[in-house]
Amino acid sequence: MNYQQILVEAAEVARATAGQGRVADYIPALAQVPAEAFGMALATADGELCGVGDWEQPFSIQSISKLFTLVLAIAHGGDALWKGVGREPSGNPFNSLIQLETEHGIPRNPFINAGAIVVTDRLLRLTGDAAGAVRDFLRGESENPSLGTDPEVAASEAAHGHRNAALAHFIASHGNLLGDVDTVLGHYYQHCAITASCRDLALAGLFLARQGSRADGSRLLHRSQAKRVNAIMLTCGTYDAAGEFAYRVGLPGKSGVGGGILAVLPGRATLCAWGPRLDAAGNSVAAMAALDHFTTATGLSIF
Amino acid sequence: MNYQQILVEAAEVARATAGQGRVADYIPALAQVPAEAFGMALATADGELCGVGDWEQPFSIQSISKLFTLVLAIAHGGDALWKGVGREPSGNPFNSLIQLETEHGIPRNPFINAGAIVVTDRLLRLTGDAAGAVRDFLRGESENPSLGTDPEVAASEAAHGHRNAALAHFIASHGNLLGDVDTVLGHYYQHCAITASCRDLALAGLFLARQGSRADGSRLLHRSQAKRVNAIMLTCGTYDAAGEFAYRVGLPGKSGVGGGILAVLPGRATLCAWGPRLDAAGNSVAAMAALDHFTTATGLSIF
Amino acid sequence: MNYQQILVEAAEVARATAGQGRVADYIPALAQVPAEAFGMALATADGELCGVGDWEQPFSIQSISKLFTLVLAIAHGGDALWKGVGREPSGNPFNSLIQLETEHGIPRNPFINAGAIVVTDRLLRLTGDAAGAVRDFLRGESENPSLGTDPEVAASEAAHGHRNAALAHFIASHGNLLGDVDTVLGHYYQHCAITASCRDLALAGLFLARQGSRADGSRLLHRSQAKRVNAIMLTCGTYDAAGEFAYRVGLPGKSGVGGGILAVLPGRATLCAWGPRLDAAGNSVAAMAALDHFTTATGLSIF
Amino acid sequence: MNYQQILVEAAEVARATAGQGRVADYIPALAQVPAEAFGMALATADGELCGVGDWEQPFSIQSISKLFTLVLAIAHGGDALWKGVGREPSGNPFNSLIQLETEHGIPRNPFINAGAIVVTDRLLRLTGDAAGAVRDFLRGESENPSLGTDPEVAASEAAHGHRNAALAHFIASHGNLLGDVDTVLGHYYQHCAITASCRDLALAGLFLARQGSRADGSRLLHRSQAKRVNAIMLTCGTYDAAGEFAYRVGLPGKSGVGGGILAVLPGRATLCAWGPRLDAAGNSVAAMAALDHFTTATGLSIF
Repeated sequence: MNYQQILVEAAEVARATAGQGRVADYIPALAQVPAEAFGMALATADGELCGVGDWEQPFSIQSISKLFTLVLAIAHGGDALWKGVGREPSGNPFNSLIQLETEHGIPRNPFINAGAIVVTDRLLRLTGDAAGAVRDFLRGESENPSLGTDPEVAASEAAHGHRNAALAHFIASHGNLLGDVDTVLGHYYQHCAITASCRDLALAGLFLARQGSRADGSRLLHRSQAKRVNAIMLTCGTYDAAGEFAYRVGLPGKSGVGGGILAVLPGRATLCAWGPRLDAAGNSVAAMAALDHFTTATGLSIF
Repeated sequence: MNYQQILVEAAEVARATAGQGRVADYIPALAQVPAEAFGMALATADGELCGVGDWEQPFSIQSISKLFTLVLAIAHGGDALWKGVGREPSGNPFNSLIQLETEHGIPRNPFINAGAIVVTDRLLRLTGDAAGAVRDFLRGESENPSLGTDPEVAASEAAHGHRNAALAHFIASHGNLLGDVDTVLGHYYQHCAITASCRDLALAGLFLARQGSRADGSRLLHRSQAKRVNAIMLTCGTYDAAGEFAYRVGLPGKSGVGGGILAVLPGRATLCAWGPRLDAAGNSVAAMAALDHFTTATGLSIF
Repeated sequence: MNYQQILVEAAEVARATAGQGRVADYIPALAQVPAEAFGMALATADGELCGVGDWEQPFSIQSISKLFTLVLAIAHGGDALWKGVGREPSGNPFNSLIQLETEHGIPRNPFINAGAIVVTDRLLRLTGDAAGAVRDFLRGESENPSLGTDPEVAASEAAHGHRNAALAHFIASHGNLLGDVDTVLGHYYQHCAITASCRDLALAGLFLARQGSRADGSRLLHRSQAKRVNAIMLTCGTYDAAGEFAYRVGLPGKSGVGGGILAVLPGRATLCAWGPRLDAAGNSVAAMAALDHFTTATGLSIF
Repeated sequence: MNYQQILVEAAEVARATAGQGRVADYIPALAQVPAEAFGMALATADGELCGVGDWEQPFSIQSISKLFTLVLAIAHGGDALWKGVGREPSGNPFNSLIQLETEHGIPRNPFINAGAIVVTDRLLRLTGDAAGAVRDFLRGESENPSLGTDPEVAASEAAHGHRNAALAHFIASHGNLLGDVDTVLGHYYQHCAITASCRDLALAGLFLARQGSRADGSRLLHRSQAKRVNAIMLTCGTYDAAGEFAYRVGLPGKSGVGGGILAVLPGRATLCAWGPRLDAAGNSVAAMAALDHFTTATGLSIF
């Protein structure tokens, strides 16, 4: 299959969405990104790598970091994680406190903010440096040693972080936080503020298309663990539009309000698309359109 | 792959769950089924059919009928259906009124009771006989002309149906029901009360593994429609345990409180397992265990 | 105190609200009332009666009937009523299903629709004719034998009653309805569709200002029961604006979407004001303004 | 009326509840209080003061402080307060986040924790020392210069304050907090941790029975403001049991988890009762029973 050609077509489809959606502006640092940027990369399990547009341009990965904190927390600590966080879709916006209140401080899944705070807390306990572990993993898999956290974004997140602070304190009030609230939030803001390109993320996620094996052949996750992470991405990876994403794109995917979406074709490849304008659910309009085109044109989806 | 051997093993795993869970007893007719019955069938896209245990024993399909009402409503009416029902996981128990209230009478998805009532209403409008359309389709695909509705179960559902009546009236109060409440509910109870065996259901669902093509080669759904039905099954098919089912089993599936679960291996096969005891979320304990074993042992899952 | 003079002033204040709010239009029969009508009556415990404007003009009492069903259910059956309905403010709009779902079919209080359906059910069981009992009581206390139900309004309520039917079926699904859903709803619509004037209602409510004693000196409620009904009116009588009504008016009161509000000055008098335009919470703008003026000008309130 | 005699009887009724309910133990400092302590004081508008039992024993006033922060915020800043906090019963437990989420960070009323945090914030802005203002007011009205904050309780509240911190951050995320979260919470914990006796509180609340006039004859609130504070106490003063309190006791009242309840007989007197054991809603069992006896025996209630 000529992937490069399909990416070129997908980019055209994505660019036709110009003007739709809104760039995230809840923190000033994010609002400065060029609204019509677009890039897309594909990495295959057998070593092919291609891309279109701004595919080597770093952007703020935001919630895509939640995928890597989850994976590293499982890799270091195994299934103990699931005592403190569930695996069900939330049916509510990504930063909701409502379910936390009725469900005793156990977040629904690791990909809503509350769940990612719990996962960050566990990874911090396991490694001593949660944000550093995520950064180092991304650097290693992408072979991009310059990849790192944007300090301005991290500071901006912290300065506008009352809602995440509310979530963290609420979780702590239920005894579901091992570390100190401010320290855990610090790591959370640090890994959300990592900047990486479509290329970097497609490479970094490739172990999920290789049943848990890293670029160097070593095993990060067991085969069943890798499948299960893909399952959680599918049911919970795109905020409260997971059903829509499964319906339109048909791949496990994790999105971020920086405009990136990382998707997995199990056994075969990863895709990462990026465009800053977001739909009402917080997912990139252009990246959704590009991924939709890719799976429709190729017939490659998990369904 | 020796499917028969794997089904034999899966049945052993399922039987080891004896005594776990509870038979549905909200209507008397369902409570009379033998609690430790178990059957499992597999049908492949290229015509193989095998089974173990009580795989030819008819049982009450209950919510599995929602899959077929959905498919037939799409086949007859296309995407117009989605104006009245969503495609997102509900995050709430299957008969919840809460989301209906905050979301203006548009049920979250076609597999919660509220959504299936809307779908039944549309299928009734499209065909004039919603329950008959489901029954006839199942008869045709399974080549089992004796398959039909259990009148005692249907009457029992109606007699204990205040909650479904509440849902239907509430939907009607928002103008989202085309037909008369009592008529729509009558068809809903009729198709839920169909009895069919694991064999029948595995055959009837096979078009979902064949990208929309029926047993006779005719097309029921377009390829993309079939994929999308599989996507909705994965995200919404097993009540508020869809995340857990995706995590453990990793296949699109639809369950019913009669104890059956129908699952799809896209491009390859369907599986139907049945055991009356249910877990807290309303899914069969034995069927879950058997399907979990199948995908673990074969490595066949969509992830 | 020259009550007549104060009523004249209150009517001026009320008329200054002309154009504010909207006449209830959820049923066509209610929408036909003259929007700028206004009347107000005062009846004292020692026999004085006065009024201004359209105070002898009958209007649809709607939810004010809930006060009389409650009082008659207590008078006939005592405290057994409270097993099936609570006494707390709901904090949600008057026809909400949400609390019913989380609170097992026990409505929060007798003045939300769900609670009034339960009270109607109990009064039906106690008297054999719930709507007739309310009508006969109002006729007797007001010495107005022509007072009765508007059949057009009752039919219109029934025809647009899906939401109340949803409530009733939901309550029945929790086993909290003794009678048949349709029969109970029939009586509910009948008593809501009674037409009475400000004069009639002020006289009919006077036993609440006389510690439970009727016009003929006989006792309808014990003294403590009468006080407690006043307490429930204050905390729950004006939908989800009970706090605002207590804050502004400072009297126990019960409102209806027909635009009437009946208020009680314990030990002293009753007031009934009427104006069809409603605020967002469903209470009459003009009646609220008139009652607010009355308590401010006289200094008479319970606080 | 021989108030002293009625207090003696009320104390007997209260002591008959021994063993019922549980002493608040969410902070260790509160759990150490003698569970069977009981006191009750009455102060009249014309200067009478009497009491029974431990009526001069200081206890932790906890949420009763919310009444005084409210009153002082109104006295210093007037009605501007109501832009940031509502006046409706919440229908949910006192520390709920749910309504904050659906109602954009505007707490339902000043007596739930969220509302009291907003009021504390405003009082801090108005006076520069919110906790000091409350303490000084209580000292002045009670003529008890030794009255003050228990530093151990305040420190304990702060150490176990994750839920209040969650509320404050959530309110701040909606822009409804003028001051710094930690500073506002510090003042909140300080005024909740004030210790005062039934005697002190009955005297301090007397302005509410005197239409806004303080002990020295100066005016703290306008007459209408005082009435309105009484109205808010009635509809919102006893957590989610305000309906029950109005029904049983029939007076405006404000309770605290330290076991105290301060109640007002407008125009006549104040009552303060104290017993550490709490019912499920967080109100003192003994104090409720004593106040219930008082209003039943005397016939004095607002209804």
